Amino acid sequence: MDYRYQQLESWLLQGLREQRWRLGERLPSIRTLCQTQGVSKATVQHALQRLEAQGLVEARPKAGYFVTLQPKMIRAPRNRAQVEAPRPVTVNELFLDVMRRSAAFDLLPDLHAGEVPPGIVALNRALGRALRRQKGDDHQYYDAPAGDPALREQLSLHAARRGWTVLPEQLCITSGCQHALFLALMACCRRGDIVAVESPGFYGVLQLLEQLELQVVEVPSSSEQGMDIGALEAALGRWDIKACVVSPAFATPGGALMPEGARKRLLALADQHDLAIIEDDIYADIAFGQVPDPLKALDRSDRVILCSSFSKSLSRDLRLGWIAGARWHQKILHLKLVTQLASSRYQQQGIAEFMQDGSYAAHLRRQRNALRTQRDRLVASLHAWPGEIRVSTPQGGLAVWLELPESVDSLAAYPAALQQGVVITPGPLFSVSGQFRNCLRISYAHPWDDRRITALGQLPGLLLGH
Amino acid sequence: MDYRYQQLESWLLQGLREQRWRLGERLPSIRTLCQTQGVSKATVQHALQRLEAQGLVEARPKAGYFVTLQPKMIRAPRNRAQVEAPRPVTVNELFLDVMRRSAAFDLLPDLHAGEVPPGIVALNRALGRALRRQKGDDHQYYDAPAGDPALREQLSLHAARRGWTVLPEQLCITSGCQHALFLALMACCRRGDIVAVESPGFYGVLQLLEQLELQVVEVPSSSEQGMDIGALEAALGRWDIKACVVSPAFATPGGALMPEGARKRLLALADQHDLAIIEDDIYADIAFGQVPDPLKALDRSDRVILCSSFSKSLSRDLRLGWIAGARWHQKILHLKLVTQLASSRYQQQGIAEFMQDGSYAAHLRRQRNALRTQRDRLVASLHAWPGEIRVSTPQGGLAVWLELPESVDSLAAYPAALQQGVVITPGPLFSVSGQFRNCLRISYAHPWDDRRITALGQLPGLLLGH
Repeated sequence: MDYRYQQLESWLLQGLREQRWRLGERLPSIRTLCQTQGVSKATVQHALQRLEAQGLVEARPKAGYFVTLQPKMIRAPRNRAQVEAPRPVTVNELFLDVMRRSAAFDLLPDLHAGEVPPGIVALNRALGRALRRQKGDDHQYYDAPAGDPALREQLSLHAARRGWTVLPEQLCITSGCQHALFLALMACCRRGDIVAVESPGFYGVLQLLEQLELQVVEVPSSSEQGMDIGALEAALGRWDIKACVVSPAFATPGGALMPEGARKRLLALADQHDLAIIEDDIYADIAFGQVPDPLKALDRSDRVILCSSFSKSLSRDLRLGWIAGARWHQKILHLKLVTQLASSRYQQQGIAEFMQDGSYAAHLRRQRNALRTQRDRLVASLHAWPGEIRVSTPQGGLAVWLELPESVDSLAAYPAALQQGVVITPGPLFSVSGQFRNCLRISYAHPWDDRRITALGQLPGLLLGH
Repeated sequence: MDYRYQQLESWLLQGLREQRWRLGERLPSIRTLCQTQGVSKATVQHALQRLEAQGLVEARPKAGYFVTLQPKMIRAPRNRAQVEAPRPVTVNELFLDVMRRSAAFDLLPDLHAGEVPPGIVALNRALGRALRRQKGDDHQYYDAPAGDPALREQLSLHAARRGWTVLPEQLCITSGCQHALFLALMACCRRGDIVAVESPGFYGVLQLLEQLELQVVEVPSSSEQGMDIGALEAALGRWDIKACVVSPAFATPGGALMPEGARKRLLALADQHDLAIIEDDIYADIAFGQVPDPLKALDRSDRVILCSSFSKSLSRDLRLGWIAGARWHQKILHLKLVTQLASSRYQQQGIAEFMQDGSYAAHLRRQRNALRTQRDRLVASLHAWPGEIRVSTPQGGLAVWLELPESVDSLAAYPAALQQGVVITPGPLFSVSGQFRNCLRISYAHPWDDRRITALGQLPGLLLGH
């Protein structure tokens, strides 16, 4: 699935983590790496340059690459093993504030800096053209609940490029991914039902469960492989779980990518326990390598509901998402109709044209490169933090998950940070268990301009007292 | 509230209804009307010309005005008196199709005819400007759940012109009125609760009650005065009703305007029985006379939730509405946040500018005149139908309610009409009781061009077999 240089990069990172090469030591030479790993010189150079960009190694002229950062710092956050009994969800009032501010993924509240990127300029022009194309009394008619056929057609083509076949008539347009998750849960659960989620996982789902009066079972999830399927299996044996919400592609908060084997086990369990699987696919388009297949592509029994939107990959202000509702498709159309009638047609037609003329693909290429660079800068700067920290190294998505020493209380630091004009996203937001107080999510969604670098520099002081 | 000529027109209509002047007889002369009614000659001529345009009277040179249509035809539909016990709502599958097609209020499916009206041209320009005003990474931030402050400010000013004080911070922007009704019901009811509604009343509410698993009590409502408050009072004495959904201004389907006295009684009952009142105010801006006060203006105990949108008065494709949530405001903000995060900010800013520069007010003035003319043409053409029919004469809104002889089955006529390319809105859609089979709603939302006049001409054949 990955390119050769990515495989080599991962192998080298693993070696650094395992202290195969220690601080100050020299890495094997480029020629040695070519021979032992069976790759070209260009591939080795590419991988080493990427490690150098992250501040992990340093090239010294005519001497080779040397380890410049303590490898302990790049260990992945630990997995929490405990599964607790299902419980109703009660979300702290403070969390509403955190959730609202953190949804922007920015360390600074409402900075609104920088230039309008070319993708957004093109999108806005396409929306303007769609407005001017309106004819007669078009504005007098509601769109069909499933959404505009042209947009569904484009989404179907977009899925096909990724190797997933979905017909336009299997899709329903929504007001974003959160709305899609809401429709999915409304369609397959009733009050009191038990839903399994990743832990740590997406806070928006926890809040939805609270409002729909559903019970939650939190399944431990690592920031490398996602949901622990063994733990899910154990939970399924103990409780009557109705649905499971997962993000196989770059899960919040750590950016985990669920391996193929885990995906197959998950679907087998779903068949065995008649489980609805709600797949949050919102980060898939932000893949630094190849876009991973959706779990839904393996769905043989029509029980995976895929939810996604343009909010993370393109614009949070469009408020357009989609849902492939599987066996619940008709029910979902009905729910969309009665809860908000329709989506805006001109908006859908604008984005459909933006996709059709290749502007979306071009935007994604630029976006992925920019985000990878931003991730690398973030990770490099985290290496300079004092003491022992663990951080995930996501291959897509918008954020890393940071584990700090047990004594750190990220929730207590939230109001203090806010007073200094910095928004942090404390670990406890990603669970209802009260766990993860010494963790936080940090996003690289925005460019590291001076103000954000300053804000990032304030974090060790705010969190670690340094 | 009305102009003098409107008052005279109503008085003359009443006389025709009461057969003070019979078919073929001469009306009092213009001079007599001036003297007895105390109005000018121009006023009398204006009123008579309007009656003539409706086909009710005919001017004969040098002889005066003669009655040309049987007055029995313009009697108002009858009130149904029976209140049935609360029940869960089950909506027929066919109704989903009817609801979707009828939401456009058009006799013809997807005609999309005519010119883009100047109000929509101005709106689209304002939206285009809002897109071009986007700065930096504005697109990376979600709007606040309550919605854009500029739009809430404009809505507050719009309400103030109508004599209703609402602060911007008491409003929450939604994806249309249906979404507002959904949030309102989610905020004040739990599964199994009983909700009182108008009967006949808005089908969208019935479908919401079904999806939220709420029970319904249908309260008889007339197409002149709206909900029968006496019947509501009796129902409140028998059952534990949690909420009541009403449309005091131009209720669907007949366009009733609830009188002041009934409004006060309703609010007193609400206090007495601790009832949440959900006010559907969507048609208020389409008033042919003065815009009526909202029920909420009389709300002293913070229990009226007002829901509205731009869909009926401006554009069904904007998908923007608003809700004044009273004591449930915080809960509603929370529900908006977890079910769809936010609304599109540029859209809100575009419409805010459209309101601020007076374009919305200008649009409403044109719209009201056009709709009144379209109503008059519809009513006039209904007079030519054979047999005994009753029809409402709304002073606002988009539709009349038609009562045909008991033998007529509008639901059976629906598929036959559809085959001929005509969309009718059968009476049973407006209730879960199975009543109103001999009724239907006909809209005057669209201009009576040749194709719609042809479709209208097909209705007597489809419904009455003539």
